[in-house]
Amino acid sequence: MDCDQYMLESEPRYYPAGNELALYEAAYSMRLPVMLKGPTGCGKTRFVEHMAWRLQKPLVTVSCHEDMTAADLVGRFLLGSDGTYWQDGPLTMAVRMGAICYLDEVVEARQDTIVVTHSLTDDRRMLPLEKKGEMVRAHPDFQLVISYNPGYQSILKDLKESTKQRFCALDFAYPDRALEAQIVRDEGNVSDRLARTIVEIGEKSRNLGGEGLAEGASTRILVQMARLAAAGLPLDQAAQFALIIPLTDDLDIRDALSGIVDACLPGA
Amino acid sequence: MDCDQYMLESEPRYYPAGNELALYEAAYSMRLPVMLKGPTGCGKTRFVEHMAWRLQKPLVTVSCHEDMTAADLVGRFLLGSDGTYWQDGPLTMAVRMGAICYLDEVVEARQDTIVVTHSLTDDRRMLPLEKKGEMVRAHPDFQLVISYNPGYQSILKDLKESTKQRFCALDFAYPDRALEAQIVRDEGNVSDRLARTIVEIGEKSRNLGGEGLAEGASTRILVQMARLAAAGLPLDQAAQFALIIPLTDDLDIRDALSGIVDACLPGA
Amino acid sequence: MDCDQYMLESEPRYYPAGNELALYEAAYSMRLPVMLKGPTGCGKTRFVEHMAWRLQKPLVTVSCHEDMTAADLVGRFLLGSDGTYWQDGPLTMAVRMGAICYLDEVVEARQDTIVVTHSLTDDRRMLPLEKKGEMVRAHPDFQLVISYNPGYQSILKDLKESTKQRFCALDFAYPDRALEAQIVRDEGNVSDRLARTIVEIGEKSRNLGGEGLAEGASTRILVQMARLAAAGLPLDQAAQFALIIPLTDDLDIRDALSGIVDACLPGA
Amino acid sequence: MDCDQYMLESEPRYYPAGNELALYEAAYSMRLPVMLKGPTGCGKTRFVEHMAWRLQKPLVTVSCHEDMTAADLVGRFLLGSDGTYWQDGPLTMAVRMGAICYLDEVVEARQDTIVVTHSLTDDRRMLPLEKKGEMVRAHPDFQLVISYNPGYQSILKDLKESTKQRFCALDFAYPDRALEAQIVRDEGNVSDRLARTIVEIGEKSRNLGGEGLAEGASTRILVQMARLAAAGLPLDQAAQFALIIPLTDDLDIRDALSGIVDACLPGA
Amino acid sequence: MDCDQYMLESEPRYYPAGNELALYEAAYSMRLPVMLKGPTGCGKTRFVEHMAWRLQKPLVTVSCHEDMTAADLVGRFLLGSDGTYWQDGPLTMAVRMGAICYLDEVVEARQDTIVVTHSLTDDRRMLPLEKKGEMVRAHPDFQLVISYNPGYQSILKDLKESTKQRFCALDFAYPDRALEAQIVRDEGNVSDRLARTIVEIGEKSRNLGGEGLAEGASTRILVQMARLAAAGLPLDQAAQFALIIPLTDDLDIRDALSGIVDACLPGA
Amino acid sequence: MDCDQYMLESEPRYYPAGNELALYEAAYSMRLPVMLKGPTGCGKTRFVEHMAWRLQKPLVTVSCHEDMTAADLVGRFLLGSDGTYWQDGPLTMAVRMGAICYLDEVVEARQDTIVVTHSLTDDRRMLPLEKKGEMVRAHPDFQLVISYNPGYQSILKDLKESTKQRFCALDFAYPDRALEAQIVRDEGNVSDRLARTIVEIGEKSRNLGGEGLAEGASTRILVQMARLAAAGLPLDQAAQFALIIPLTDDLDIRDALSGIVDACLPGA
Repeated sequence: MDCDQYMLESEPRYYPAGNELALYEAAYSMRLPVMLKGPTGCGKTRFVEHMAWRLQKPLVTVSCHEDMTAADLVGRFLLGSDGTYWQDGPLTMAVRMGAICYLDEVVEARQDTIVVTHSLTDDRRMLPLEKKGEMVRAHPDFQLVISYNPGYQSILKDLKESTKQRFCALDFAYPDRALEAQIVRDEGNVSDRLARTIVEIGEKSRNLGGEGLAEGASTRILVQMARLAAAGLPLDQAAQFALIIPLTDDLDIRDALSGIVDACLPGA
Repeated sequence: MDCDQYMLESEPRYYPAGNELALYEAAYSMRLPVMLKGPTGCGKTRFVEHMAWRLQKPLVTVSCHEDMTAADLVGRFLLGSDGTYWQDGPLTMAVRMGAICYLDEVVEARQDTIVVTHSLTDDRRMLPLEKKGEMVRAHPDFQLVISYNPGYQSILKDLKESTKQRFCALDFAYPDRALEAQIVRDEGNVSDRLARTIVEIGEKSRNLGGEGLAEGASTRILVQMARLAAAGLPLDQAAQFALIIPLTDDLDIRDALSGIVDACLPGA
Repeated sequence: MDCDQYMLESEPRYYPAGNELALYEAAYSMRLPVMLKGPTGCGKTRFVEHMAWRLQKPLVTVSCHEDMTAADLVGRFLLGSDGTYWQDGPLTMAVRMGAICYLDEVVEARQDTIVVTHSLTDDRRMLPLEKKGEMVRAHPDFQLVISYNPGYQSILKDLKESTKQRFCALDFAYPDRALEAQIVRDEGNVSDRLARTIVEIGEKSRNLGGEGLAEGASTRILVQMARLAAAGLPLDQAAQFALIIPLTDDLDIRDALSGIVDACLPGA
Repeated sequence: MDCDQYMLESEPRYYPAGNELALYEAAYSMRLPVMLKGPTGCGKTRFVEHMAWRLQKPLVTVSCHEDMTAADLVGRFLLGSDGTYWQDGPLTMAVRMGAICYLDEVVEARQDTIVVTHSLTDDRRMLPLEKKGEMVRAHPDFQLVISYNPGYQSILKDLKESTKQRFCALDFAYPDRALEAQIVRDEGNVSDRLARTIVEIGEKSRNLGGEGLAEGASTRILVQMARLAAAGLPLDQAAQFALIIPLTDDLDIRDALSGIVDACLPGA
Repeated sequence: MDCDQYMLESEPRYYPAGNELALYEAAYSMRLPVMLKGPTGCGKTRFVEHMAWRLQKPLVTVSCHEDMTAADLVGRFLLGSDGTYWQDGPLTMAVRMGAICYLDEVVEARQDTIVVTHSLTDDRRMLPLEKKGEMVRAHPDFQLVISYNPGYQSILKDLKESTKQRFCALDFAYPDRALEAQIVRDEGNVSDRLARTIVEIGEKSRNLGGEGLAEGASTRILVQMARLAAAGLPLDQAAQFALIIPLTDDLDIRDALSGIVDACLPGA
Repeated sequence: MDCDQYMLESEPRYYPAGNELALYEAAYSMRLPVMLKGPTGCGKTRFVEHMAWRLQKPLVTVSCHEDMTAADLVGRFLLGSDGTYWQDGPLTMAVRMGAICYLDEVVEARQDTIVVTHSLTDDRRMLPLEKKGEMVRAHPDFQLVISYNPGYQSILKDLKESTKQRFCALDFAYPDRALEAQIVRDEGNVSDRLARTIVEIGEKSRNLGGEGLAEGASTRILVQMARLAAAGLPLDQAAQFALIIPLTDDLDIRDALSGIVDACLPGA
């Protein structure tokens, strides 16, 4: 098992917004499982990477989707030259090596994928490989982390109470203005001033939420806009390309967003 | 067959709430199958572990889910170097070795998974391995236990009458105040006084049930809150992290829960 | 083919309620297929076992369910060291060895499972193994028996007319008071008097049918209650454990059932 | 290919009701495909068997069902000791050997099963084995026959126009009184007089159709009733066992049917 | 690759109704894909066969259905004695050998079956075998032809605009009276006069369309009727057998159709 | 890995409509993923081919459809002579070789297909091959491009916000009159004047959109019409064949379209 390829090579930049580092470390010290709640592109994945780096633990990340089965997590028999052999899935690998296992957007997965984590998230800390007839006891360092976006939550797709009640939970949101400008500047490689302009555009786009826009621009979008500007595109073109056209096909909302951009442009 | 890995190594702590130990032992003496009914995280799994330890029988636990098939329980043919060979599933293993087989949240499973237990739960006590053409007679010590949560019961997913009527049944609920404080103190490693405060918060959260909260805090949540406090987090932060944010995304209910926490804090 | 493991070793106790033995024997003498109709736990399976013992024929029993396919009944190709080989399913085995084949709750199965029996239930008495290209002619002793519970019958899940009209049919119901007390006494190993008390409780529970209870207590439940009493439980605890809690989660019906039990207790 | 096992060994008894023998022979002389329409148990299968015997052609019969796939008809690759090999399905076998291929209740099958017959039922008379890359030209003697029960016809399950228009069609119904009495006498091995009584009961049961009975008793049921009488059962018991209880669970209709039987009994 | 078995051996008789030969040849000269629209049994398949013969190209015909997958068209890996090997599906064979590939009733197929043709129907003219990692460039002679019946078109099952806009399209309808009589005479082997009578019956049946008949008699039905007459059946019996009973189970419409037949009979 | 077969052999003709070349190049310089939005047949695929040629990068194109799974993109285990071996899917190949990977009509694909791209479209730029337990880091030249047609967008089938916000986006529309005439002339090989006539017909057809026509004629249709004219068909016949009959079965709209064609004909 090659544990090294799951160690982070350099420190993932992360800008704390509150006491989330301390809370996470307390949960990890007790090996309690953690759930990260928050909207698209606000930094949940980056946070887990940062914590894995801080704690110097390997990180196994799995993007969940509705066709994912328990076997995709736990492992399966494959056919080799001497008959079938067992191959651990990413969760089993993490359980054995003592990694932090991060299941991204776990609500998307089918129930069997989620239920399979139950015996790992109580005092048993074991993973039964039912198809193999093996009972894997978790490495002392193992911890489970899941994320989900409350905005996507629906009756059909929600975590069962018996799952929810196993996790400590942290709320994530877009960073405040000053912090977001710092992120955009550092990640997008632009000047302080340009970063502040971009963040202003982002904030105003989020206020359109009530008027037909599903979600406003994420921090990720603002960083991408900054990078296009750094690559030489005029800011209005970068805004069209990275923010307005991706976010909506509604012409009225596009006009409103263009208005926001024009009003924030340096020369405006 | 490695029976030992299914024996419990140490006594699982269990605090009886009534005569459930005697009832279970009577059922086991007649090898009658038992059904455990009750809400999330109230101790059903721990109870079975405790009984298996008391009776000194191996325990095979299976977390059921809606994608589970009869083959997952009973076994299947695998491909080896000399063609296919049969591998027993967890139920068949339990039937052969004389274990207590615990099917957790059995209503979640597909009908074929449930029907497969029928010939094990009447006087026949046999398990037909239809795909293998073998008829396994149950070991004299074998017993079947299932759990289910009446709160999840729906028309689409309920046990058939012909299944229900095969089981003796026990109701489980959250323990009373004194007992729950004892559990929180012992499992969470906190002082008596802190444990009582945490239980008070838990009880009050359950009273919000009628006001939009799906379920109140389980005993499991209260123990996790205690552990975070033991790890050094202030109690209000532990309550946010382990109880309030996991339970709901509704801001009004979060406020109500925060109010409950504040009112119960030692200094309040 | 190991015919012996399908022979019953001892006489299954059966208490006739009418002329069902004679009717069944007439049908068997003509090898007409038979359908057993009746509620949960009233003795259909035991009746078939008894008839197989009387006629000294092997009995192959299959519990049907909605995921059962024709291949589960008829057989399939498996992979061996010299390529695939055919393995007979339980129906094909019964057809070849001249057994009584009992398909329990056949309506639960998918249509293909049922249609596969058609050529066995008319003058052709053959089973085409389409995947193998073989036409199996039934052994002269072979007979098909199916059961179903009219209470579960729905538009989506009913036998097709072309299936129904192939079977002779027998109605089954719970035995009358005297016979049921005899069964409870003999199977539950309790005194005559206790058996009569238990049967009285059972009968009264069935009268609650119209008031929210899906089905009253089956004879099976009454036997289990007797066994718990024989194991030393007080009768009211045995009633809670074996009858009331399994049957319903509705608190009002539970109260009504408890009232019935109290009124029937010896000291009442 | 073992053609002999598909030849009928003796003449299947068939009592013509009209000019169906001549019509079928004309269609066969042109190798036009034929569709048999009619209710349950009225003799469609027997008719095809009779025609196959008259024309001295092998007969391949397939009972269709909703889980049947084109591969079940056409064939599939199986795994042997030298890798996969192709095995013809029943339709392909019939096409190669020049058999009459009878698809019973073809509407039950999935569309792919039906569409696969299209190139066999026009001037092309070929069957493409797409998975094998082979084009099988039909043997000159091959003919396709299908049956279906108009009573089961629904919007969801009906033959497409492009299928219907490829077949010549024959209507089948229950035989008239004199002919049906002759069938019941000969097949049930009872006296002329008893046969006439049984047919009278059958006819009157069919008149209850409008009053809640899905279908009246088929000729098959009447023959089974006769056989039970020949085995020694009194006629009223035989009627309950073979006709009334199989046909319905409705107590009022059962009473009506019992009244019919009583009124027709010899002594009445 | 055996190209010869896909060459037509003799000229398929085809009676042009307009300029469809010239239009098709123009499309073929540019290798534009062609769509044939029209009702059941009006000659679409025959037209493609005729064009393949005229152009002296091999013809690969596939009858589409709703269970058809892209792999059925493109090919799949099969297991041989040295592991898996790739087998081209009919579309890939046609693409390699430069055949005309005719997908009959393509709307029936699943989307993946249709989308797979996209890169073959624009300037790329390539077929990616994604599972094999091969990019097949189409033989210069390859052309794709599809058919569909506008009468079956529904919202759920229609070609996507992005598919439709790739094809040139031809309308097909039943031939006019004189031409249809010529076809019936030649294909059915009957006299000119009888052919005209049969066509008259066919035309009048089509006028019942508005009165409950899904579709009137196709040219195919009229040819089959003629063949039965040529085999010696009286025309009214041939009409019942080949036209009236196949087309409908509605007794009123059957009467109307019988009236049409009687009125057209030579002696009427 | 044969990178060469994915290099474009000659420059794909592309007529820029705005600053899309510069925007794309800026996104590529930052390796930001790009989404192309626009209607059927307006040149999205051609644009990507053109950019791949300009940047001299290999291009891997995948036509998505609703039955596509993540394994179709990422790869799967196949069975070889020494057991299973892994075969990269088209996405994995592109990730390794540093190609531009173009997922055409990605909304059609199942969620798992889309989610699998998430870790490739943020700073991680990795593709986890979960079934193989390998983490592929993207080649520095790799870029992901997707297309989708806003007209097909529905609630059931739309990109999730967390997907949308990862892409820069470009709008595509049909070219303006002068540019479209130039394309039709060059690609269809017709005179300037004929090209202008054809474009006039196309434009007018698009104005019928509000009157029952799903979409007007695409540039692709106009090119095909030109090619048929170049092959010698009169323009009105070419219009019927390539534009009117493919676009609609509605007779009124066909009349309207024929009117448009007649009015635009040179002699009109």
